[in-house]
Amino acid sequence: MDTFGIDIWSDNNFFIEDGLLKINYKSKPSLISLVKNIRKQNYKGPLLFRFPHLIEKQINRLFDTYNKAIKENSYNGTFNAVFPLKVNQFPTFVQPLIKSGQKHNYGLEAGSKAELFIAMTYNKNAPITVNGFKDKEMIHLGFIAKKMGHNITLIIEGLNELETIVQVAKETNLPCPSIGLRVRLFNSGSGAWAKSGGIDSKFGLSSTEILEAYEMLENNNLCEYLTMIHFHIGSAMNTIKPLKNALKESGHIYAELKNLGAKNLQAINIGGGLAIEYSQFNRTINYSLQEFANDVVFTLKNIARQKNVEEPNIFTESGRFISASSAVLIAPVLELFSAEYEAEHLRLKDVNPPLIEELNDLYKDMKKRTALEYMHDSIDHLESLLKLFDLGYIDLTDRSNAEILANLIIKKAISFLEVDDYEELKRIDNKIQEKYLLNFSIFQSLPDFWGIDQEFPIMPITHLNKKPTRSASLWDITCDSDGEIEFNPNKPLYLHDVDLNKEDYFLGFFQVGAYQDVLGMKHNLFSHPTEVNVNFDKNGEVKLEQIIESQKIIDILEDIDYDTNEIKSILNSKLDDKETYEILEKYLNDNSYLKTTWS
Amino acid sequence: MDTFGIDIWSDNNFFIEDGLLKINYKSKPSLISLVKNIRKQNYKGPLLFRFPHLIEKQINRLFDTYNKAIKENSYNGTFNAVFPLKVNQFPTFVQPLIKSGQKHNYGLEAGSKAELFIAMTYNKNAPITVNGFKDKEMIHLGFIAKKMGHNITLIIEGLNELETIVQVAKETNLPCPSIGLRVRLFNSGSGAWAKSGGIDSKFGLSSTEILEAYEMLENNNLCEYLTMIHFHIGSAMNTIKPLKNALKESGHIYAELKNLGAKNLQAINIGGGLAIEYSQFNRTINYSLQEFANDVVFTLKNIARQKNVEEPNIFTESGRFISASSAVLIAPVLELFSAEYEAEHLRLKDVNPPLIEELNDLYKDMKKRTALEYMHDSIDHLESLLKLFDLGYIDLTDRSNAEILANLIIKKAISFLEVDDYEELKRIDNKIQEKYLLNFSIFQSLPDFWGIDQEFPIMPITHLNKKPTRSASLWDITCDSDGEIEFNPNKPLYLHDVDLNKEDYFLGFFQVGAYQDVLGMKHNLFSHPTEVNVNFDKNGEVKLEQIIESQKIIDILEDIDYDTNEIKSILNSKLDDKETYEILEKYLNDNSYLKTTWS
Repeated sequence: MDTFGIDIWSDNNFFIEDGLLKINYKSKPSLISLVKNIRKQNYKGPLLFRFPHLIEKQINRLFDTYNKAIKENSYNGTFNAVFPLKVNQFPTFVQPLIKSGQKHNYGLEAGSKAELFIAMTYNKNAPITVNGFKDKEMIHLGFIAKKMGHNITLIIEGLNELETIVQVAKETNLPCPSIGLRVRLFNSGSGAWAKSGGIDSKFGLSSTEILEAYEMLENNNLCEYLTMIHFHIGSAMNTIKPLKNALKESGHIYAELKNLGAKNLQAINIGGGLAIEYSQFNRTINYSLQEFANDVVFTLKNIARQKNVEEPNIFTESGRFISASSAVLIAPVLELFSAEYEAEHLRLKDVNPPLIEELNDLYKDMKKRTALEYMHDSIDHLESLLKLFDLGYIDLTDRSNAEILANLIIKKAISFLEVDDYEELKRIDNKIQEKYLLNFSIFQSLPDFWGIDQEFPIMPITHLNKKPTRSASLWDITCDSDGEIEFNPNKPLYLHDVDLNKEDYFLGFFQVGAYQDVLGMKHNLFSHPTEVNVNFDKNGEVKLEQIIESQKIIDILEDIDYDTNEIKSILNSKLDDKETYEILEKYLNDNSYLKTTWS
Repeated sequence: MDTFGIDIWSDNNFFIEDGLLKINYKSKPSLISLVKNIRKQNYKGPLLFRFPHLIEKQINRLFDTYNKAIKENSYNGTFNAVFPLKVNQFPTFVQPLIKSGQKHNYGLEAGSKAELFIAMTYNKNAPITVNGFKDKEMIHLGFIAKKMGHNITLIIEGLNELETIVQVAKETNLPCPSIGLRVRLFNSGSGAWAKSGGIDSKFGLSSTEILEAYEMLENNNLCEYLTMIHFHIGSAMNTIKPLKNALKESGHIYAELKNLGAKNLQAINIGGGLAIEYSQFNRTINYSLQEFANDVVFTLKNIARQKNVEEPNIFTESGRFISASSAVLIAPVLELFSAEYEAEHLRLKDVNPPLIEELNDLYKDMKKRTALEYMHDSIDHLESLLKLFDLGYIDLTDRSNAEILANLIIKKAISFLEVDDYEELKRIDNKIQEKYLLNFSIFQSLPDFWGIDQEFPIMPITHLNKKPTRSASLWDITCDSDGEIEFNPNKPLYLHDVDLNKEDYFLGFFQVGAYQDVLGMKHNLFSHPTEVNVNFDKNGEVKLEQIIESQKIIDILEDIDYDTNEIKSILNSKLDDKETYEILEKYLNDNSYLKTTWS
């Protein structure tokens, strides 16, 4: 029975029981029970479940692991962390995050003015860090946040930002926020000119600029506000070595600045980079969180000892690690495209073209011994027959027979080969993929699949006591040939052969809680899925809360700046009966995904 | 003088005069004059100019070219075209498109319910085609559109859709729209199993399904509504051969259906696929529109003659060809990051580490003859010095000196090499890229660059009478290392060395009118640029109209479902003075891009 790699990626968040995928928490409900609950309320199309308990789990794990490393190494600094809002800014995620993080004083990182407003509004007493390029307004906002009582650190990406801080400090009566310096590391990647972390890295100050920054602080009596140095060596590290190099480099910069006299400098912010497992086929991360934390603590301790400075507090900004597992996308399968090639559709004539007769003989005479040979012959014959059609020598019925016979031959060959030639089989499976049409948009819901070939674990949420036998390619409902997750013989996804007229079939896409919401694209004007927060009450029973339906068509049109009153009035004017116009109004208030379908 | 490939990609839409990039239309204004006009109105951040006259130009060219081919071949069918809304659904684009298309009866194609509503509202008497997967509601909409008087064709992607048409026809009193069949082609790519156009293509009916579809139409007395067959072999073809194969295949399917008795079948819709030139370095398209049109007409004429059927009308659905050139993105350069490595920043000590002394000697002693050798030595030395820093053997000042000296050496080597070793030079330029920070988001404004490595022509809109000398990498203001267009030695972009304290510098990104608007991602909550339609009055003078400012921060937060009243009330409650809160309100009503910056 295929478990879809659940042992590799799910971190025990989910488990299989009675053929269903279940949530390993409290009353352990099945995902399908949640789906049914929502669909009973007449929400169609894709669903996004957010699981606040998984956010809490990851926050606890992060803090517990670092605090353990600190204790075991008798380290004198503290551990602190902020969540980078760019990874997920949505309120249904951020609000549970802040709630779960309070006991650890878990803060927020903002990379734009809009994100800073979210942090200034909803952060309690936890730290706020501000990265990214800043205009004067954003720096002014930082001063206002300080006045509000926030523990805020502006991380400087360039000397001009520091000049602006000096300027705002002079121009206003507001208290100055803490200041961090982002350092440009040289050897964190593979050599001084590696893409990220090298001289050409997008972010951070060179050594020369750090020295100048320090002088500027001194000259303006702002040295006391310098509290942090910061680096980030890239996201989703699958090995720990670059981090160790970066820690040495930044640790020495910290120590050098301490020795220059930066008395309130007390923290090293190591950015993000903690990977999570996206693969359902083999593990891709070669370290544990505990190793990671131990390496950080150990390396910083050594440098502090070597340079005789106090051990810095440790800050991290892991986003993916905290958020990815907390959201699951569920897409309904609308149709399987394969029936077209079944034997009952053959329309053989009394007299057929010779190659069709040959195909028919190959099909009937195939033995296990001849399976591969006959299959390859049939592919040749099919290509010849298609050519004959293009040249006008055979008709549409012949062409249809050729398609069906070639497919029947391949399927028959597969049934012979199934037992003893698995590798060959996977190659052939590539040719008779079952196409699963799903009611969702890859561009909207899995933008990283389109953009950076990000894998996500995929599995059905029912039927898990049956063997999945169909090599699957997944199609979305956009009019775009990129809206497809093709069958990959190296990472083969097999799904079940289901009759959608008799039963539903839903696929889950996992680890979608990081970046996918905000990067979602409105290709073909498909908007976000219907979203639900899955909470649990005191008795451990599920409470589905904060349901946000996928955007209505009329609102989508308004978003792209159509005058929706004009739209309604034009449509109305084109119809002479009120009844039909009311149907249009109703449809305008539906969401954009497919609603009433054949199955 | 570098012309940034304007002869290759701009199709004479733009030209260079007096160092400025100008619009080759009417009063021929410079782009910078438009930019200044808009910025005077206090719109900061990136700008998107739409040029309705370029939409009109492309529509005219499409129709004129096909009509010429039809005339020259004495072809009996007509030419018809629709614009696929998925390529650009925005009203500031669609409204001029419809206006310019009216004289050709240029129609719209819809691929989703939301797009169909746009077509039903704004289309005049031109054809509407409907592609993509359809639910019952969408098919019902098609019937309502027909009742409104639209010339609408529902293109069937699967037999279930046809069943639903039959059902809706029975259930309602509405008139039945025209029906098209999308055919799945086999040999348009490279063999029967090619990714697009093969058996595994995402879209279309197999031969067997076409025969079944025809029977279903016959059995339900709907044959008279079958008017079109449709195919699409993929977007942006850079060669014409796959199209010819597809035409033969679909032409024979058309003829076979005619001979089966499909008396109202009269059109072949060849989809899109017309490429436009995105490269600024060398031409990538090996056909002209006239060759393309001639091939279509000629091939269809031959098949009609061979099978003795009437010549089909030709439909096309080119989107990129019509829209890409009509929009230009202008991003202000905020900063150049290079001054950090200038000689004046050297802080050499009385006694320096030996490798620093050696670097200093290399710099001073370099001759043309030794330039390359010394440069390579300096890189080795720099890497050694960085290692020494990580191990605690040299201090931050030494490290800064090392960085500066290595960079000075490379620059000096370049000045020696400039004349006679251009290839080597480009490799070195890669190492001393100038980083241009731009006030825009690549994820928002050039999503195809991120997603599919789409090139776009890039050039400054001023300074074009000066030689650009800096190898440039372009950074956006997102907190993402992917938000960068790196210098590519194979397609080197050189920009000007400008002092932003004294002068502005804007880069134009061209051919962004197709797909980029709707695919734009809100990474870091940066929203769409400020948009402007550039029209011309009767005297040929520019009129800037339909200005849509980039979204306000408060509206962005509302879009992702924050309660903005709650945000305001919490922020207010955290401040004890009204004055500071008013500043926050003001900032909430700014757009999200950088506003007051250092330069």
